[in-house]
Amino acid sequence: MRPLFLLSNDDGVTAPGLRFLIEALRPIADILVVAPDGPRSGFSCSITTKDPLHIRQVSHEEGLQVYACSGTPVDCVKMALNLFPERKPDLVVGGINHGDNSSVNAHYSGTMGVAIEGALQGYPAIAFSLCDHSPNADFTPLKPYLADLCLKALSLHLPPFTCLNVNFPKAPAFEGIRICRMAHSRWIKEVEHRQHPWGGNYYWLVGENLELEPEAEDTDRWALAHNYVAITPTSLDVTDYRLIESLRPQFA
Amino acid sequence: MRPLFLLSNDDGVTAPGLRFLIEALRPIADILVVAPDGPRSGFSCSITTKDPLHIRQVSHEEGLQVYACSGTPVDCVKMALNLFPERKPDLVVGGINHGDNSSVNAHYSGTMGVAIEGALQGYPAIAFSLCDHSPNADFTPLKPYLADLCLKALSLHLPPFTCLNVNFPKAPAFEGIRICRMAHSRWIKEVEHRQHPWGGNYYWLVGENLELEPEAEDTDRWALAHNYVAITPTSLDVTDYRLIESLRPQFA
Repeated sequence: MRPLFLLSNDDGVTAPGLRFLIEALRPIADILVVAPDGPRSGFSCSITTKDPLHIRQVSHEEGLQVYACSGTPVDCVKMALNLFPERKPDLVVGGINHGDNSSVNAHYSGTMGVAIEGALQGYPAIAFSLCDHSPNADFTPLKPYLADLCLKALSLHLPPFTCLNVNFPKAPAFEGIRICRMAHSRWIKEVEHRQHPWGGNYYWLVGENLELEPEAEDTDRWALAHNYVAITPTSLDVTDYRLIESLRPQFA
Repeated sequence: MRPLFLLSNDDGVTAPGLRFLIEALRPIADILVVAPDGPRSGFSCSITTKDPLHIRQVSHEEGLQVYACSGTPVDCVKMALNLFPERKPDLVVGGINHGDNSSVNAHYSGTMGVAIEGALQGYPAIAFSLCDHSPNADFTPLKPYLADLCLKALSLHLPPFTCLNVNFPKAPAFEGIRICRMAHSRWIKEVEHRQHPWGGNYYWLVGENLELEPEAEDTDRWALAHNYVAITPTSLDVTDYRLIESLRPQFA
């Protein structure tokens, strides 16, 4: 039997990145899409607790079912797994995100939220992002990688509580694939002040990303800057085990 | 000079947990509060990108300034650091959350979002949660711990890209403090179906938490179940370094 892939994203069910991903994966898998009914960029692993959730079927054809959900990317994964339990997914896939989810961006990313939730629920999971924020981003250079990487994520038998964060550089072709660690960086100058036409102040989140270790060659940022596809193996167990050892004597 | 503590939470600026924390910390620090203007439970590390942010001063007295912000917990930290740069905080504090942020709940927690954002910005950071979801939760047993743990978080010189996740059991008194790892658990039965009175379906996120390793004695869940205060040292570098080593040969 063909595998079943559960897809979601944070740019919404109509986003070109998701549409491109669907077409790239249809040859190798049946596909269930439960994606937000609008943009949910920067939604991280947020869940909806104060409002009810709604879901509607967008399309249904052989091997492809698409639903739009009123919630967050993580809500979409939870809805899919709970409302359609008759067939468990073989893989949970987030993306393709319009924008860079390398380095600390992973913490804010709804696309990573999809993969993290999939892995928390016990499924192999992978997130795809293209470092091009444009709605008209060109996804065609990713075509030869997407199905292969999904099949690889299946055959690798990823350990529990892990997922893969895959970022593609904005480039017409790539140098290859690098397995990376998350670069340490920091967002700065993040708030832009504006004056309301009728008086009063408001603010937009903006910012620049400051690299804290630009010379390190083993990071996702280095790989992307040198036109490599960056795969960052990601742990959902966020315990700092080294810190446990150093803290225990302090609290003994 | 007295240290400055930046406080935020995800239950909102009027939440009793935040109010209790302010009173517990005022004797040892000047306090700047920038907290959401309403409940933001389950907001994780989400940020607001599509809407403008607003902020208003709620109160101002000697050693205590309080602001309410229209954004997420992480937005609040970013707004505080960018709008009030003249005095950098010595410590960023999230909480006290009304509810359990141990185990995988840390991924969804806006309270942890506060501490994670503080640490991403380079500040020592700590999150406090009480395992009692009630708005009328009794915070008095935490009183002897809060100021001490904040001072300890300062004196420990936590390494970059780390923060502390502190969970208190719901109990009149505690057995002591344990330094823990994050327990592996999984949310199940998470969607409850309802019928709208005028027809149509809607859903609430609900759920039960299934412990995946109830016997392990080094986890936060074990500590809480045995009436200990659980401190989980948390890494913001979510790279799975062991997985890097095993994956590299697969992509060589």
